[in-house]
Amino acid sequence: MSSTRDIDSLIEMMAKLPGLGPRSARRAVLHLIRKRELKLMPLADLMQNVAATARECTRCGNVGSAEVCDICLAPKRANGMLCVVEDVADLWAMERAGVFKGRYHVLGGNLSALDQVGPEQLRIPHLIARIAEEQITEVILALGTTVDGQTTAHYIADQIENTVRLTSLAQGVPIGGELDYLDEGTITAALNARKEL
Amino acid sequence: MSSTRDIDSLIEMMAKLPGLGPRSARRAVLHLIRKRELKLMPLADLMQNVAATARECTRCGNVGSAEVCDICLAPKRANGMLCVVEDVADLWAMERAGVFKGRYHVLGGNLSALDQVGPEQLRIPHLIARIAEEQITEVILALGTTVDGQTTAHYIADQIENTVRLTSLAQGVPIGGELDYLDEGTITAALNARKEL
Repeated sequence: MSSTRDIDSLIEMMAKLPGLGPRSARRAVLHLIRKRELKLMPLADLMQNVAATARECTRCGNVGSAEVCDICLAPKRANGMLCVVEDVADLWAMERAGVFKGRYHVLGGNLSALDQVGPEQLRIPHLIARIAEEQITEVILALGTTVDGQTTAHYIADQIENTVRLTSLAQGVPIGGELDYLDEGTITAALNARKEL
Repeated sequence: MSSTRDIDSLIEMMAKLPGLGPRSARRAVLHLIRKRELKLMPLADLMQNVAATARECTRCGNVGSAEVCDICLAPKRANGMLCVVEDVADLWAMERAGVFKGRYHVLGGNLSALDQVGPEQLRIPHLIARIAEEQITEVILALGTTVDGQTTAHYIADQIENTVRLTSLAQGVPIGGELDYLDEGTITAALNARKEL
C-alpha cells in the first residue's frame, strides 16, 4: 500500500516509544487521524517546535530550549544548594513536588560496572567543578535506592565529603502507603529512622 | 517555566492519546528529546506529512492519502465481495490476516439507541447504494460479537437480504486458545457450529 506508507511508518515509530506497542500505536494513530485538525495537526506542529529547539542545559543537564535552562537562570532559586538526580525525569518529579528551592545537577545515569558506565560517562567531574565554581554549601543526593543508585551516591560522597554538607532524601513509609504493601527493606529503613512524636 | 512550555504542552497532548497517561507521556517525550535527531525529528516530519495528507476514502471509509484508497483502487481485488467492518482498525486487522481478497466497507461505529447512533450516522445508506452500484454479490458482516455489533448486523441483514449472499465470520475457539480460558458463550457457539472431521 504505497500511499499509506507514511501512516504505516508513523505507527511503526510510535510503537517503539516506551510504554507503547504495535496495538496501542495503531489505536493512537487512528485516533489522531480521526481528529486531524484538533489533535494531529497541533501535535505535529508542537513536535516540530520541540525538535527544533529542545536541548540540554549546559550547566545542569535539564532539558529546555536555551543553552542554560530556566531553573539555572531563575534568580529566586536558592544559591549554594544542589540536588543531584539521576535523570531529567527525576528532576521533573522533584519540581512537581515543588518543595525544593535550590538548583539541580542531572547525572545522566548511574555508575555501573556491568554496563561500563564510569564517572566520566556521567556528569560527575562537572558536578565537582560546579561545587567549587558556584560556592555550593549543600549537596542533596536524590538518587535511586537501587544498588547502582547507592553505588553512585557512595562514589560521589567519597569525592566531595568534607567540602560541602552532604545529605540524602529520607527513606521511609510513603505518604498514603500501607504497611501491608511495603517491602521489608522499606519497613526496616522506616523503623531505623523512627522519630519522637 | 516559559521556555519549556512547548515540552510541557507536548507531554500534555501525548498524555491524552489512548493507551498513554501522564507518566508514560513524560517518559516518551524525554526518550524522544534524548534521541532528537534519530527519533524526534523523523517522527515530527512524519506526523506533519500524515496531518497534511491523511483522509478518509470516500468509497469505503478506510484512511489513506487519496480520495479513493489503495484497496478500493487495487485491480487485483475480487469484485463483487464486500466485507463490512465497524472501524478502520478492524479493516487493518483483516488486512494483517491477509486472507480476504475483496473490498471493504467501514461503518464507522455500531447502531446504538443509547448513544443515539442511527443508520444515518453510520455508512449504512452508503453501503446499500454501493451494493447496487458495484454489483456486489456477497456481503460478509465482520462485526463485533457484542450486543451493539449484533444489532447492527441484524439491521443490515434486514435491509439487504434477498439482494445478495449474506455471510458472517465463523464463531468458535480462537487458534491457540485454550478451552479453560474461554467464556461460556464462545464454547456454546463453537459446540453448536461443530464440524465433521
